[in-house]
Order: sequence, then C-alpha cells, then structure tokens
Amino acid sequence: MTFSATVLTLYPEMFPGPLGISLAGRALGEGKWALDTVQIRDFAIDKHRTVDDTPAGGGAGMVLRVDVLAAAVDHAVAAHPGCPVIAMTPRGRPLTQARVRELADGPGVIVLCGRFEGFDERIFEGRTIEEVSVGDIVLSGGEPAALMLLDACIRLLPGVMGAASSGTEESFENGLLEYPHYTRPQEWEGRTIPEVLRSGDHAKIAAWRKQQAEDHTRLRRPDLWERHKGARVQSASGARQETKDQGQ
Amino acid sequence: MTFSATVLTLYPEMFPGPLGISLAGRALGEGKWALDTVQIRDFAIDKHRTVDDTPAGGGAGMVLRVDVLAAAVDHAVAAHPGCPVIAMTPRGRPLTQARVRELADGPGVIVLCGRFEGFDERIFEGRTIEEVSVGDIVLSGGEPAALMLLDACIRLLPGVMGAASSGTEESFENGLLEYPHYTRPQEWEGRTIPEVLRSGDHAKIAAWRKQQAEDHTRLRRPDLWERHKGARVQSASGARQETKDQGQ
Repeated sequence: MTFSATVLTLYPEMFPGPLGISLAGRALGEGKWALDTVQIRDFAIDKHRTVDDTPAGGGAGMVLRVDVLAAAVDHAVAAHPGCPVIAMTPRGRPLTQARVRELADGPGVIVLCGRFEGFDERIFEGRTIEEVSVGDIVLSGGEPAALMLLDACIRLLPGVMGAASSGTEESFENGLLEYPHYTRPQEWEGRTIPEVLRSGDHAKIAAWRKQQAEDHTRLRRPDLWERHKGARVQSASGARQETKDQGQ
Repeated sequence: MTFSATVLTLYPEMFPGPLGISLAGRALGEGKWALDTVQIRDFAIDKHRTVDDTPAGGGAGMVLRVDVLAAAVDHAVAAHPGCPVIAMTPRGRPLTQARVRELADGPGVIVLCGRFEGFDERIFEGRTIEEVSVGDIVLSGGEPAALMLLDACIRLLPGVMGAASSGTEESFENGLLEYPHYTRPQEWEGRTIPEVLRSGDHAKIAAWRKQQAEDHTRLRRPDLWERHKGARVQSASGARQETKDQGQ
C-alpha cells in the first residue's frame, strides 16, 4: 500500500523539496509513497484570502485563524481517512523513533505546518491533532520539521532502504546511540581502525560494538541511558516491555 | 555582516530548497545570509570518485571515508575561517535554542551532512567537529536536519523577522513552552477566546500568559520544567545564570 503524506501549508512549493531527491525521491517515483500538498489559504473565507489575524490580548506576530485551519484539516481528513493529523509545534511531544516507526507502519500522515506566531489554540480543542516537536528550537514555520518527519518515515517504508539496511541496528532502535563506524583506509593521519574490527571474530566484534554503544549513550545522553537501564530491569523481571513505551 | 552557511553534502541540489522560499528565501535574496554548498564527492581521491566503503568488522550499509571527509572539511574551513563545523548525527548533543542563538550571533556555520550508515569515527578525532542531533530519530541523511538548523539560525539574523517579532517571547527563550494563542473569530464552534484576553488589562493578560506557559511546560515537558525551576532557584540565590546554561 502506498504511504500517503499530506502536508497542509502556506508554502506548498517547499514540497517535495529535498524529498524529491535521493532515497525519498526514488521511492516517490516508484509509488512507495504519495505526496498531497494542501494550500491552507484555499480555505480562507473572505475575498482577501486572509489566513491570520492579530493575537487576542496583544503581542507580536500573527495567529492562524481556527476556522480556516479547521476547514483545511477537515478537507485533508476526508480525503485521507485513517491518517493521523500531526501539527509540528515546539510545544509538542518530542518525536521519537518509536513514533516514527508506528507512523511508517500506518496508512500515512497528515502534517499541519504553522507560520507566524502559531495556531489559534482552539484548533487543538476542536479537532484531534497530535502536537509533535522536533527539538527545543524555534523555526520560521513547520515546513522544515515536516520534511524531517516525512524523511524519517519514508526510509522505513517497505523496499525503500533495501533488505541490507533494515534499520534495526541503528541509533534509538534498541534505546541506545549507535556504535562508531570505521572503513578503509586502515590508517589515516596515524589513526588506525580498532584492532578488534579486523579480528574476524564476530562475537568479539558484537560485544565491542555493544560496549561502545552503551558507553557513548551513558556519556552523551544520560537521559536515554536511564531509560534504557529501566527498560532492561523491567524486561528482566518479566514485565511486558514494548519499545513504544519509550516514545509514548 | 552576511551570515555564511556552508553545507557539505552528497546532494547539493537539496539546497537552498525550502530555504529559498518565504522568510529565509527573501533574506537570501537580500544578502542577509549566503549559501555555499560543497559536493563531498569532489574530494574523492580515486578515479571512480568513491566516497564510501563497507564497514570494518562487517554489518549493513556503507561508511563515509575519513580521508574524503577530512579533505572536504579542510576546504570549507579554509574558505570560511571562524565558522564552527557541525555534523548532523543522531549521536550528537541535542540542539537547543540557546545554541541556535549563539550560532546566529556568529559569522556562520559549516554543516556536514552524512548519508548511508554514517561517518568514519576518526573524522571526529582528527578534526574539530561538533556533533548535533535534532531529535531521537533516524533520517536518510543529515540534509533535512541541516535545513532545520539553518532555518532556525536564519530567522534570528538581524532584519530577517523585523522589529515586531524579536523572538524573545517564544518557546524556550525563557526556558518555558509558549503560552496559547487566539485570534478572531471571537466564537468558533461554541468555543470562545478566553475572557481575560479581551479585558484590555495588560498586567492581567501577562500574568495569565505566564501561568499558561508554566502549566503547559509542567504538564507536557517535565524535563524542561525541572531545568526552569533549577534556573530560577540559582537566579534567586544570586548565582550567575545565563540562558545558555540550559543548552550547553
């Protein structure tokens, strides 16, 4: 089944953008995913096609009107039933690889991109919309975040990466950061590839990589490490432990 | 001074992409930032222009060669002295708004984008490169993350957003998520704009917004809330407290 990506935006010309090139671009050409961009402005209700207005209570910037947003969302949901609606907002729940995998396993996703100060809050009360954040930073709009979310989903679709790279050995898939990689040349500026990787001893290599992944995670991301340890303890005690617990 | 964005990538055609449109696109046209893309493949040293090889010790995917990467990085650093080199990797330090602001205040940034399994680890030992992550997810390459990083920086450059939106009232700028926004219509599907925002009482409005920002942060992002409280306590006790402490 084709994964359906619908983007609600004031700048449809930003899509597919980088997703029209390389891995995602080939997959788009092969029909492994489909892109539908929806111009939010088409749902404006006045002759000036107004989509925003000044914030109630004062302040800088402009706020996207709830009635216009709701009409655009309703249109997309009707066209793509069963696809969750995700708004890219800095206030959202941080996106995780577990959530990306769930989305990639589903029929598709409807992504709502804001601009200006943000959305009229009532859109989140009146419609079922998941607010998702891609880092504690502020963007000029949701579009760059939407491109990232879609890229992360698309590479996991069946047949996109090929059998060789299942993605199961990557960062976050087991709650750890990935181990370091090396390739030829054997020596570079006096630095050599670690001896163990040239040993041909697969068990030793696997053990070294696991240790490296654990060390990196503990040092660089104590937050991930604590969750990883927690998951292992629960697992060992026989409690049901799903990967998605980390993300949800 | 023009902010200099240099992107080292195997897909230079992905840039400026969305950054050529809207806010960032106008700023590019006005010379407020400049884009230089560097094709990593141009620094390959064999006649086949090889940039990657199989991982030492076995495993899926391909690894970017350290000698090719180093040549590309050295070229960019020589062309843009004083600009930090940032690699977009899931193993990196999570990007923060404080770090974005620091970068935007500087001369520019050199962004190294990986593809395939990743970089030969020795590039991080042999060159000064900051590894930065934009969320606990895996992308097909660093390019979508680079677009996001640059977008976040560009909007903060002088004159890009205009005086009305200084960015100081946004999410994360004070360690909190942003308060909710509302605009006309006054009533939508039975939902009205909160009374206080129509009161005209600026002090009351400011107090309500602060309370909302605190409530949202505590409920949605207990991690941010803990840091915010910690910062306030330190501040109150007279300790030196910079915003950048949160990020670095």
